[in-house]
Amino acid sequence: MIQKKRRGQLIVLSGPSGVGKSTVIAELLHERENTFFSVSYTTRKPRVGEADGINYNFVSEETFEGMIARGEFLEYARYVDHYYGTSLKVINEKLEEGVDVLLDIEVQGAAKVREKCPEAVLIFIMPPSFEELSRRLHGRNTDAEAAIEGRLEKARVECREISNYDYLVVNDKVSAAAAEITAILTAESCRTKYYLDFWKEFDVL
Amino acid sequence: MIQKKRRGQLIVLSGPSGVGKSTVIAELLHERENTFFSVSYTTRKPRVGEADGINYNFVSEETFEGMIARGEFLEYARYVDHYYGTSLKVINEKLEEGVDVLLDIEVQGAAKVREKCPEAVLIFIMPPSFEELSRRLHGRNTDAEAAIEGRLEKARVECREISNYDYLVVNDKVSAAAAEITAILTAESCRTKYYLDFWKEFDVL
Repeated sequence: MIQKKRRGQLIVLSGPSGVGKSTVIAELLHERENTFFSVSYTTRKPRVGEADGINYNFVSEETFEGMIARGEFLEYARYVDHYYGTSLKVINEKLEEGVDVLLDIEVQGAAKVREKCPEAVLIFIMPPSFEELSRRLHGRNTDAEAAIEGRLEKARVECREISNYDYLVVNDKVSAAAAEITAILTAESCRTKYYLDFWKEFDVL
Repeated sequence: MIQKKRRGQLIVLSGPSGVGKSTVIAELLHERENTFFSVSYTTRKPRVGEADGINYNFVSEETFEGMIARGEFLEYARYVDHYYGTSLKVINEKLEEGVDVLLDIEVQGAAKVREKCPEAVLIFIMPPSFEELSRRLHGRNTDAEAAIEGRLEKARVECREISNYDYLVVNDKVSAAAAEITAILTAESCRTKYYLDFWKEFDVL
């Protein structure tokens, strides 16, 4: 009987602020087994409704810089005056167990992950339009107008990086976007490379 | 609003005789819209239950060689004393309309399609085990024992070519195999390359 014996897949999700990444990720984790969301570290303050260890691990600048010094990050970046980073240890443990690991990282960080882990799957989540992104950011009621304008400008810059991504998913409806990401993860798990070792063992190759 | 405006995808399915390709394809066409199965041409005789224009276009050696001479094949091969070939015309029309086109081709033909259309998606359908493949071939009751042995030996040779394929789908249960292929086609339609032109038009890139 053919069994895939493999490490988990490392999946990077990026997308402009306000595109609905957290909601899509929550839906995905709800629908899909054997999938782990790796919570990033940040030095920014929690927004209303955000919880430590759930949305981010909120740490001090000092703690974050200590982690940098000890080489504990897969990637980290400074973005709008705050650090954001992805810890290596938990990710590696989960991947070894065969669990797929989701990362929510902005474009600079995603490029660094691609460099270090060429086999990572990079997915960019796009709004249906910039008008809709603007509506969502205004509807969130967490940012002043100037901050929203900054996020929209940042979104235009980020969208120039989509050619670095393997897949693009439009978040029009959350359930449809989550279903497309699920399909991508299923497809990636069918990649022939995951089977080659297996067939070698059976002396077929 | 983001719209994918794209040619259809060319999808090549291969797999050893007896693996259940026709059943999987029938299930896939039943479940999935906008998908066209391109019926191959062959000079072999129909098996019990096979119909002209459904399983194959059954043609004479003379007709087939005329089509070769007029360059009407995307690929063709001679295999166990018969010709098998894929006609270009209908495929191109469907792809232009944005319809995905499925081809059922053996490994030599698939390699030729890859050469001519590097963007084609190649999927190998594998039995859960060789014992199961043998059971299925015996259960089909269409071949003499020697022919079955020949098909099993051929299967072992074909499986050495799986590294030429993008994806490998194990046909244990037909519905699960069809669902994996559907996921692969969904994922492939999310490839960033299909969106780059769109974003260029909007002057975002």
